[in-house]
Amino acid sequence: MGLLSKPIKTLDDLFVHTLQDIYYAENQIAKSLPKMIAKATDAELKQGFETHLEETKGQIKRLEQVFQMHGQDVKGVTCAAMDGILEEATETMSDVGDKDVLDAAMLSSAQAIEHYEITRYGTLVAFARQLGRDDCADVLQQTLDEEKATDKKLTAIAESKVNRKAA
Amino acid sequence: MGLLSKPIKTLDDLFVHTLQDIYYAENQIAKSLPKMIAKATDAELKQGFETHLEETKGQIKRLEQVFQMHGQDVKGVTCAAMDGILEEATETMSDVGDKDVLDAAMLSSAQAIEHYEITRYGTLVAFARQLGRDDCADVLQQTLDEEKATDKKLTAIAESKVNRKAA
Repeated sequence: MGLLSKPIKTLDDLFVHTLQDIYYAENQIAKSLPKMIAKATDAELKQGFETHLEETKGQIKRLEQVFQMHGQDVKGVTCAAMDGILEEATETMSDVGDKDVLDAAMLSSAQAIEHYEITRYGTLVAFARQLGRDDCADVLQQTLDEEKATDKKLTAIAESKVNRKAA
Repeated sequence: MGLLSKPIKTLDDLFVHTLQDIYYAENQIAKSLPKMIAKATDAELKQGFETHLEETKGQIKRLEQVFQMHGQDVKGVTCAAMDGILEEATETMSDVGDKDVLDAAMLSSAQAIEHYEITRYGTLVAFARQLGRDDCADVLQQTLDEEKATDKKLTAIAESKVNRKAA
């Protein structure tokens, strides 16, 4: 969360702050996925990243909808966590030569991204319900369900073949 | 993962690299938790963080055991992801004045930490099994199970009272 963000006094402030954090994170993910798509060798993995990119674009739109529903400007604040996760992903990608090992490394990075999203959306849904904003919670829950499904799909790809090819 | 780490050529290299990444991360978590314990107001949350700290110390020992089992020096490499997650946690802690909202914010940070651990240990278990190191996988699986249980416990504390008090 950003240094220039406003002080957090209430759960509502914390909810908005977390929305801004994940809005920044989603936009960074949308910028990073095309590089991962370009580098993926396994066809199913490449397809998985492409689907993830489409979903990310939809999730960004959903966040914009929640900002509006909650009477807030659409805005991101720097998310050091996602910056760190993506920095590691980029570094590892450049460190790995073998294409099958690279697929396994990118898959591991994609799951780290997913889990960050799962934890933040889980928190957002809980905050929204606590604040009596079931309408916002329902929209955010759609994204949470998508993220969990994507994580399961990535695990299945990892276990069924990507790790096997890399070994 | 670190700039000075050795090139990753095989799945075994990637496994060792990921071990080093989470070893660094766990040690950073062990340094951060005492601050969260000191700042927590809700007794159950404070107790939860204390348990997490004890578990983290045990998880560090388990990682040291896996390094040895796999014939590797015990070593960490900078994990930008965990640095980012903890930087956000610290920033948010300093941004929040109200003690109940602070509890909710710290709980959210703790879950982000948990999810990073869950994704990395999940990957490590899968890599170890693929490499035929079921002995290492079994040790790592113990930590993965602990992390998942802790995440559930934190969710229960959040839903049953911390978010409610903050609202």
